[in-house]
Formats: sequence, structure tokens, C-alpha cells
Amino acid sequence: MTAEASPADISHLTVAVLGGTGDEGRGLARRLSLAGHRVIIGSRDAGRAAAAAAACSGGPLLSGAVNRDAATEADIVFVAVPWEGHQDLLTALAGSLAGKIVVDCVNPMGFDSRGAYPLRVAEGSAAEQAAAVLPGSTVVGAFHHVPAGLLLDPEIERVEMDVLVLGDDRAATDLVIALASQIPGMRGIYAGRLRNCGQVEALTANLVSINRRYSAHAGIRVTGVWPPLR
Amino acid sequence: MTAEASPADISHLTVAVLGGTGDEGRGLARRLSLAGHRVIIGSRDAGRAAAAAAACSGGPLLSGAVNRDAATEADIVFVAVPWEGHQDLLTALAGSLAGKIVVDCVNPMGFDSRGAYPLRVAEGSAAEQAAAVLPGSTVVGAFHHVPAGLLLDPEIERVEMDVLVLGDDRAATDLVIALASQIPGMRGIYAGRLRNCGQVEALTANLVSINRRYSAHAGIRVTGVWPPLR
Repeated sequence: MTAEASPADISHLTVAVLGGTGDEGRGLARRLSLAGHRVIIGSRDAGRAAAAAAACSGGPLLSGAVNRDAATEADIVFVAVPWEGHQDLLTALAGSLAGKIVVDCVNPMGFDSRGAYPLRVAEGSAAEQAAAVLPGSTVVGAFHHVPAGLLLDPEIERVEMDVLVLGDDRAATDLVIALASQIPGMRGIYAGRLRNCGQVEALTANLVSINRRYSAHAGIRVTGVWPPLR
Repeated sequence: MTAEASPADISHLTVAVLGGTGDEGRGLARRLSLAGHRVIIGSRDAGRAAAAAAACSGGPLLSGAVNRDAATEADIVFVAVPWEGHQDLLTALAGSLAGKIVVDCVNPMGFDSRGAYPLRVAEGSAAEQAAAVLPGSTVVGAFHHVPAGLLLDPEIERVEMDVLVLGDDRAATDLVIALASQIPGMRGIYAGRLRNCGQVEALTANLVSINRRYSAHAGIRVTGVWPPLR
């Protein structure tokens, strides 16, 4: 599996989800395993990873491992760790992640009495930070806005929203777009180069505001574009 | 008309659109005048303002004036000037805008060979810059993502997208939400405080990327929220 693979090659990938014991990570692992992929939830603790994999109603090829083993095994690696641990974890795993597509899903966000707000990131965005510390990997930003509650809910078959996919490598963004579009109701949309990922990550703070005002699990759809829904 | 007005009071407003001779400004003026409001296109040149008003197939109560007269006449003032002239124009009109709702629609954006990218704004966003230079006004950020081409197209009756509305004054954001929702197909959605407006403005760069990739006039819808469409 290389960044040059065509979107037709996405069946039966091995996917790692680093930080996969958190809500967003478990939700992504669940949906990607239900789409037929072998998925490894990564965690600092192998036991917690295995417990998370067993408890989230995923597909048959869902397992858990320590982050490094998950990264080593995988064709493509999702990063769903808390922002606080982002740089250190990726720096530590740079060798295992070299030559792979790394999909950064992290939203650097703070909370205070007035709600959520985006944190300033020196590199511009979490995804650009990942690209800076992983020069041997192909970094894609995606899945920032998908509510974990919807991904984890066994009652919800279709996750009706779009996934904005950002990156500088066409083959890699095409692959992640195809992966997102395998989840029923979901559609991957190319949304620009990595330098335009900061505002996409930050928009999560707006979705938090929307959720509070409307008691919702808000997502977004892009109107006026042609990629069809499954 | 004050910021304390209820959403029920939005019939027959007088609306100014500063920078209203640009595509976005004419488009907004056209749709708001078709919704039944008296709309004044503002420009540095009264003749150009009148010509723009006459040429954009708007409602019967659409006219043009110099920016200062438009601001003075209006109950609510939209700002659709190029980013380059934003601070100077608002500073010059601060007296005329005092006590009014100012709806900032400006996207600080640059373009280079790789496409569009957001410009860094010292105040955080164009809307926060407006709030800084207009301490006597109530600033709302909205209408950042609506393609001018759709607003101006007489063949398009329904503009099928949501308008993210940001601000710190509930009555003012409610009013702008109600105004947006008067345009057929469009829905105003509260999307957070003014401090979260920067990423909403910047997201326009992503929509430019989407438009290039998919040959589209992309907008966004928020999924999972309850305000009904008209």
C-alpha cells in the first residue's frame, strides 16, 4: 500500500487508529471495521486497546494493540489522540509511520466559560504539525467534524454528513475520500491543501456552539458539488 | 430598530450594503430587496451605486447611494467591501454606524499559484476588527460562504445553503438569522461568538478549493439541527 495506490485499492486495508480508546477514535475504528477493513485500535496500554475494541460493536476484524504495534501493522494510520499528546506521540512513532498515509483528525481546541475556541498552533494546524514531525509520511487532514456519538451509536446506520479531506498528495486524499465514502451516508470531499486545514480543525469550535444552541449533533454537508452519495 | 428588536420585527427594514457594487454586495442587495426590504447599495460613487441597483434584477425598493448616506439611512448595515478597504471605511463611518447592527460578510483572503488561503488578521477576524473600530455598533458575522454567482442568477430561485451567523448579542444574531431565512432555500444558523468568526471567514478558502476541484458553486449545510427550511 503506497500513496500511489488508486482509490480502487481500498478494499481490505489494515487501518490503525492511534488514540483509539477515546470516543472519536473508537467511533472511527467501529465504522471503518464495519466497512470491511482490518482495524487496530492503538493505545498506550494494550489491555485498554483490546477492551475498547471488544466493547464498541465493530466489525469482526477489529482488535487492539499498543500504538507502536498498531502503527507498524497498518497500511494507513488515523491519529485521534488528544491535542496535548499529539506532537510527542507522532515524534516517537515517526519511524513506524514512514512511508504511510497518516490521517490527522485532531482538533486543537480550548474550553472556557464562554464555550469552545480554537487554539493557536505554531505550524498552522495539527495536520501541518504532523507533516512537520513526520517528513517520511504523507499527511492528510480529515474527519474533524464527525460527532463521536453518531459513530458509536448502533441505532444509527447512516452518518449523514460530509468529511472534508485536505492534503497535498492527490493519491492520498483520493484514498481517504474513498474510505470516508464507504461509511453509509458519509461522503468524502476534497477541501484544499494542508495549509488550509487550520480553519477546518477550528470550525469544530463552531460545531460545539451549534450543538449547544440547538441541542444537536451537528455536522456539515457541502452543497452544489457532484460526488454522489452512496 | 434596535438590537433589542425581536425577530418578528424584521419586515420592512431599511438595509444598506456597503461595498454593494461588488458581486457579493449586489447579490446580497438583490436577494434582500426581493425579500421585501428597502435596500440601499452603498459605494464611494453615487452614480455607480445607482447603476448597480438598476442592473441587478432586485426588488422595487432597491436603490444606490454613497456609503455614508446608505449607512445613515439604514436600520441594519451589511459590509461587503474588499478586505483591503475594510478597516478604513468602517473607521470613517463609525459615527453613522453607531447604535446599529453591522453585519460583516468580509473574507480576508489571499491568492497565489496554489490557490486561496486565509490572511492572518491581528484582531482575529474581519468581524472582530469591525467590532474593534465600531465600539458603538453591534457587530454580527454572517453570509461569508454564499456564492455571489448564485445570488445574482435570476434563474436560481432557491439558494440551497445555510448561513452561519456569529455574534455576542443574542437579539442581533436572532435578527440576522431571521433575515437569512427569508431568502428561499437559505437558513440562518447560530454558529458561535464573534471570537469564533475567524475560521468561518477562513473556510471560504476551502470553498474556493472545492469549487476548483469539482467545478462547483459550493456552499454548506449544517446537518442534525432543527431550524426548519422555508
